[in-house]
Amino acid sequence: MSRVISLAVIPGDGIGPEVVTEGLKVLDTVTDGGDVAFEKTTFSLGATRYLETGDTLTDDDLAAVSRHDAILLGAVGGTPGDPRLAGANIERGLLLKLRFSLDHYVNLRPSVLHPGVSSPLADPGSIDFVVVREGTEGPYVGNGGSIRQGTQHEVANEVSVNTAYGVERVVRHAFGVASARPRKHLTLVHKTNVLVFAGGIWKRVVDEVAAEFPEVTVDYLHVDAATIFLVTNPARFDVIVTDNLFGDILTDLAAAISGGIGLAASGNINPDGRFPSMFEPVHGSAPDIAGKGIADPTAAILSVALLLDHLGLTDAAARVQAAVAADIAERGEATRSTSEIGTAISDRIRAH
Amino acid sequence: MSRVISLAVIPGDGIGPEVVTEGLKVLDTVTDGGDVAFEKTTFSLGATRYLETGDTLTDDDLAAVSRHDAILLGAVGGTPGDPRLAGANIERGLLLKLRFSLDHYVNLRPSVLHPGVSSPLADPGSIDFVVVREGTEGPYVGNGGSIRQGTQHEVANEVSVNTAYGVERVVRHAFGVASARPRKHLTLVHKTNVLVFAGGIWKRVVDEVAAEFPEVTVDYLHVDAATIFLVTNPARFDVIVTDNLFGDILTDLAAAISGGIGLAASGNINPDGRFPSMFEPVHGSAPDIAGKGIADPTAAILSVALLLDHLGLTDAAARVQAAVAADIAERGEATRSTSEIGTAISDRIRAH
Ligand SMILES: CC(C)[C@H](C(=O)O)[C@@H](O)C(=O)O
Ligand SMILES: CC(C)[C@H](C(=O)O)[C@@H](O)C(=O)O
Repeated sequence: MSRVISLAVIPGDGIGPEVVTEGLKVLDTVTDGGDVAFEKTTFSLGATRYLETGDTLTDDDLAAVSRHDAILLGAVGGTPGDPRLAGANIERGLLLKLRFSLDHYVNLRPSVLHPGVSSPLADPGSIDFVVVREGTEGPYVGNGGSIRQGTQHEVANEVSVNTAYGVERVVRHAFGVASARPRKHLTLVHKTNVLVFAGGIWKRVVDEVAAEFPEVTVDYLHVDAATIFLVTNPARFDVIVTDNLFGDILTDLAAAISGGIGLAASGNINPDGRFPSMFEPVHGSAPDIAGKGIADPTAAILSVALLLDHLGLTDAAARVQAAVAADIAERGEATRSTSEIGTAISDRIRAH
Repeated sequence: MSRVISLAVIPGDGIGPEVVTEGLKVLDTVTDGGDVAFEKTTFSLGATRYLETGDTLTDDDLAAVSRHDAILLGAVGGTPGDPRLAGANIERGLLLKLRFSLDHYVNLRPSVLHPGVSSPLADPGSIDFVVVREGTEGPYVGNGGSIRQGTQHEVANEVSVNTAYGVERVVRHAFGVASARPRKHLTLVHKTNVLVFAGGIWKRVVDEVAAEFPEVTVDYLHVDAATIFLVTNPARFDVIVTDNLFGDILTDLAAAISGGIGLAASGNINPDGRFPSMFEPVHGSAPDIAGKGIADPTAAILSVALLLDHLGLTDAAARVQAAVAADIAERGEATRSTSEIGTAISDRIRAH
């Protein structure tokens, strides 16, 4: 055994634990007998933990999670409207706190329409692009406030913060991603005609970094126009680079057109390697279907593939991806349980 | 002749003048022989004017436009990348300046999938909803700035400003719209889990105003989830109320799924009547197809219907809408010129 990788596992709430179980099943299979071992530590974090202890993510939790090489997260969040969660904001206090504290400045979200998957689009064409969403700035910084809250005179502000440092590193990463892909095309999405300053810095930095990547072609779309192209001509996209909020919106739409969020994987990446990167399905905790064993674990399994890839285990990543693609292609209409899907994908990996 | 209505006409750039000509053709037809006359004044505003004079919208222009009962606008904006427009921001300096100065706090954007229109969705179902987009606040206020611009140490901020006054008036208007529709359902779209303060005021105000409209059912969606539903189940929407930026994004997507921005009309409305309301197609100036007589004037014509409706000329509005619906239903694949479409719709109005 030449390499031991420590993995922090955050199953979370709702269907999170169910899909993570399958992700780990696949991880175990693909690493079985190889020279890499994953040492897993499970962290109980999320709405369930909050309801038990009142804690969302303590400093100790954060320090402990940080000491790992990578993180696999299922989904966090309780039942919407649960009055006991009224004072909590699990998303900000846990998910975003992890992304910000661990400097996950690249939020990588590939969209691929696999053969055999039906899209809500009548004529989707070929969908194979990746969104590089900034993860630590923009309107997500939590730089908001209000005065006279709850009155007729309330004013509530929210500041989008964009720094050259923050924009440049994610833009350069996105160019790198584009440069490594066959089509080598990058689209900046923003709203430069209205958000003059935030949009301005993005435009300038993209123009500047573009000079370092002459092999990459570049274009620009306003975010509103980008949503149109996502439903009329998604094949036009190769790599999209965009801010935190626009990336949030576009990647849900991207997931929807390429078969649903049951298939959408993501990586919250700290490319510097100073902090562990975190891999998670784009979907949420889906409390309505939790505990029934019917959640689709594919997005969690594809997130494991992204994790393997990030750790340099490209072979293992490719094997997982191929097994998922094969499973999807032959899926048909049959209803399988969460664990049946995980087992089927594991079996395919073992058989190859 | 019992009523004279003064109309400011801003044809604008690109295909703007072409589609406005057809809008006015239809307006003339539907008012012909009635007891309402439109007195039109044309304003030369937009990129063309800017290139000639260096002016975008002077105080005199604004004062002159304001003195009218209503405004019909085609589209503004020059050729993207035109170096002579590098210093101009026609969108902010003209379009948004009009919306803000004339207190167009309701940006009304209906989406209807007409029979005979093909949607990019495989199974669109029934699409018939309206987005009530806030028009004078949010991230559009232009409250941004940057320091150390153009350097590696630049910080560029953009502030979303949301006031109880501003949110309440548009939310109350949206409830009114919902209350007058058969399904009486209103969906608030925001991102309350991340934009805690901006989202918080919207949520609170919707909850409060809901008490005045017990007949209206209300739900809430995060903006990312809303894009998913727009492509998987648009029939779930009746009235959407949302902020300026989310409304911008959602209405382009809404236009795309219901047949394209060639069909999407909008009203920038000042419900108080202190300022003239402005009606415009959602599409832009499309310089690439300008001057060829091939632009679809339907969105401009439907904007005329919204204008008539706003002025209380509900009968005339309904006649325009019916003629457009009939034209669309029998459109088929035939290619018609801009003016042929306008004439066909006018002829239908005249025949009824
Ligand atoms: C849960 C929420 C805070 C999160 C986000 O907005 O980033 C989610 O929508 C996502 O895209 O991962
Ligand atoms: C041109 C632009 C400023 C405008 C907006 O963002 O509001 C347009 O996209 C619209 O939706 O009317």
